[in-house]
Amino acid sequence: MSKNLTTRSEDYSKWYNELVVKADLAENSGVRGCMVIKPYGYAIWEKMQAELDRMFKETGHSNAYFPLFVPKSMFEAEEKNAEGFAKECAIVTHYRLKNDPDKPGKLMVDPNAKLEEELIVRPTSEAIIWSTYKNWVQSYRDLPLLINQWANVVRWEMRTRLFLRTAEFLWQEGHTAHATKAEAIKESETMMNVYADFAENFMAIPVIKGLKTETERFAGAEETYCIEALMQDGKALQAGTSHFLGQNFAKAFDVKFTSNEGKLDYVWGTSWGVSTRLMGALVMTHSDDKGLVLPPNLAPTQIVIVPIHKTDEQLAAITEEVNKLVAELKKMRISVKFDDRTNMSPGFKFNEYELKGVPIRLAIGPKDLENGTFEVARRDTLTKESVSKDGIASYLRDLLETIQNDLFAKALDYRNTHITEVNDFEEFKSVLENKGGFLSAHWDGTPETEEKIKELTKATIRCIALDRVEEAGKCVLTGNPSKGRVLFAKAY
Amino acid sequence: MSKNLTTRSEDYSKWYNELVVKADLAENSGVRGCMVIKPYGYAIWEKMQAELDRMFKETGHSNAYFPLFVPKSMFEAEEKNAEGFAKECAIVTHYRLKNDPDKPGKLMVDPNAKLEEELIVRPTSEAIIWSTYKNWVQSYRDLPLLINQWANVVRWEMRTRLFLRTAEFLWQEGHTAHATKAEAIKESETMMNVYADFAENFMAIPVIKGLKTETERFAGAEETYCIEALMQDGKALQAGTSHFLGQNFAKAFDVKFTSNEGKLDYVWGTSWGVSTRLMGALVMTHSDDKGLVLPPNLAPTQIVIVPIHKTDEQLAAITEEVNKLVAELKKMRISVKFDDRTNMSPGFKFNEYELKGVPIRLAIGPKDLENGTFEVARRDTLTKESVSKDGIASYLRDLLETIQNDLFAKALDYRNTHITEVNDFEEFKSVLENKGGFLSAHWDGTPETEEKIKELTKATIRCIALDRVEEAGKCVLTGNPSKGRVLFAKAY
Repeated sequence: MSKNLTTRSEDYSKWYNELVVKADLAENSGVRGCMVIKPYGYAIWEKMQAELDRMFKETGHSNAYFPLFVPKSMFEAEEKNAEGFAKECAIVTHYRLKNDPDKPGKLMVDPNAKLEEELIVRPTSEAIIWSTYKNWVQSYRDLPLLINQWANVVRWEMRTRLFLRTAEFLWQEGHTAHATKAEAIKESETMMNVYADFAENFMAIPVIKGLKTETERFAGAEETYCIEALMQDGKALQAGTSHFLGQNFAKAFDVKFTSNEGKLDYVWGTSWGVSTRLMGALVMTHSDDKGLVLPPNLAPTQIVIVPIHKTDEQLAAITEEVNKLVAELKKMRISVKFDDRTNMSPGFKFNEYELKGVPIRLAIGPKDLENGTFEVARRDTLTKESVSKDGIASYLRDLLETIQNDLFAKALDYRNTHITEVNDFEEFKSVLENKGGFLSAHWDGTPETEEKIKELTKATIRCIALDRVEEAGKCVLTGNPSKGRVLFAKAY
Repeated sequence: MSKNLTTRSEDYSKWYNELVVKADLAENSGVRGCMVIKPYGYAIWEKMQAELDRMFKETGHSNAYFPLFVPKSMFEAEEKNAEGFAKECAIVTHYRLKNDPDKPGKLMVDPNAKLEEELIVRPTSEAIIWSTYKNWVQSYRDLPLLINQWANVVRWEMRTRLFLRTAEFLWQEGHTAHATKAEAIKESETMMNVYADFAENFMAIPVIKGLKTETERFAGAEETYCIEALMQDGKALQAGTSHFLGQNFAKAFDVKFTSNEGKLDYVWGTSWGVSTRLMGALVMTHSDDKGLVLPPNLAPTQIVIVPIHKTDEQLAAITEEVNKLVAELKKMRISVKFDDRTNMSPGFKFNEYELKGVPIRLAIGPKDLENGTFEVARRDTLTKESVSKDGIASYLRDLLETIQNDLFAKALDYRNTHITEVNDFEEFKSVLENKGGFLSAHWDGTPETEEKIKELTKATIRCIALDRVEEAGKCVLTGNPSKGRVLFAKAY
């Protein structure tokens, strides 16, 4: 159990890999680069999905479902996209297996079942969706189209890591079409704000909202909005993106509409997505050397109760007391579990729930029964206290809220103390190596300088923060004039 | 709109195809055999998902996610499965596209990016899941595994129809592992009962629970439980299956456990699933020549309110009245929409909601304002009445329940009058041609007779009903002895 977990200071990367597997979140499968999301991990993902889905619907979006496959010619239709990440992908070329005549019991691809046109397993769905939108849009009355899809996508990544980078992953992708440029830009911003709200208030992960540079932008987008988070090892993680697509996809797929004034024009588009990568961000933001630390909003079990007893009579008395509390907590819609398994020791259970990040653990033994108390242990602070059973349900409800807020405050404090203003390149390199985090530095605005810094340091421009102050300065590498600071970091 | 819909008596099949598209449920995509599930259709599917998911969790199951791809060798591991439907499937052979040197702007499959082992896009996930379970199960303490997955699957169907048979479809697949045979059988039965409960009480579709014959059984199952529904054209539709897998998959993937008594044995398995095919069953059970008829439990919008007015003042007064009702209905968790679009006539709106199957339509005009009434129209019966606004919210709530029950009663009545006992083969053929529905007939129990009847009539044995009465008789084709009647029908 947790005693076997590599610590973060020993090897952060190993700690992460071990924790994801030991806490039953996910594991590698027999299929290269594809993961199995285990029930406990999936339960957390379901909580994310439910909340995001609610937020999408509240902002006027509907869900739909588009094909898994994209014919090769559709990729070609959007040239910029095809020049982007779309090339490393899974390609279906045949549609039948047959018995291998030379090897009894073995199967082979039937050479007579070759597809006329190869199908690409979607790495993202702009192409298939915009080719559909063409038939859905004639007039301004058909706009806006505000559609989201929950789906699996595949990108043939060579080096994979559970949740952070996998060949197949789960995500949602919103694809919207609008009559005006202003409306589409507003939509991209709205969805970036939805993501930021979700990350901060639901996942307790502070994020910086910003714009990507041209180099880091999604191929086919005119502007990419993003939210950037900071992990405990000082590396940044892009937690969500929202793209203003201009009329690029409308032009590639010939999606036109007749405006209110009878004018024919291309529609304006956006797309936005978050993925199971967020699970990686969750683990790396809050967890510690003993295991997962889950914000109460995302914890499948928010409170676990462990009985401590020697006799059956004691267990019976404890159970009676616990049942009352469980009923009260359930009424408050708090997810609570009474772990009365008798073949495991309390110590074993304590370790297990620590590893799995259950926010609050209650213990109750004969002494507590006498005193009318419970022992209340917080996972985030690893502190314990004895609490009277009178009014304990509302005490626990408030404590869950406190924990949620404290986790955010702690992560925010870490993040804020890891944004460092640097003014020359030596300082840049030194802070990057010794402290990590975001480096707030002047940049001359050219892709060449950006590329050079990446080559020299592995740091990339994570974003141009939306709230940055206009400030004249000199580029940290070239000394050329700059209009303001941007945020550099090494990133996942 | 609806006036263009082919009627059922004209051409049932055409009626279905047109209705699915015109009611905005789904449409064919640019990808062979793959459909686009449109927002309105997807909203209905989401309601099905939510209810099924709740029922699965209530019966102790958790969700997880397994890879989209299955390496070819895993298919071979389960021979029976490989001999079944698994051969017609999408096969990934390459992992990269590159620019075509001969055709500027075109892409080609990179011949240097051939996979060592082909990957099959899952047609079902037994192979990948059982190869994972191998590592999850050591002792009886690890059992039962009660896991469900919501996923897309692909089967390379040659002739496809929206929802009923598509190359890619959405489904859930439960895969469970147990320590004893009895427990696994009980699980298969429990899930068949969950499906039947869902079909009848949520979708208002009466079903017959039964067992498949050996011929119709899932390859790799020892027993297949099913629920069979009857469509309005007299053809049966398999609405869900639950398989008792015996130790077949455990043996194929070497999944063993140490029992309570220290004995090593293979685990016992089940799998069960329903798919977007249920959308087809929904349409074909309840809808009519004017469009969809949705049971209130599945209707994205349960009540729509249409204002009838000539002046802005009238609309303002109507809106005031409607807003009060809308607030009341929302409190009752009834999904209600006030359609105050001014660029469409009430008649246009009436047609639209008829086509889309909204269970209750309210209209309110100046006369209703005077009288303190609403006009209430039922979609299922196409009847109208004037109802006083006092207490109308609870009246409507009750009416939704009535409609739900009436739809089930109507479908049940149709189904029951379309189960015909036949005792010789001439009668069999005549009833099948002239009336359709289920034919309850004696069968000698041999696959040969089953096959012969299928050849001669296209009817298959839909199931051996669980509640059939033991009754000695003579096979309707061969005259050989039979132990009881089975249900034949033509089927989707």
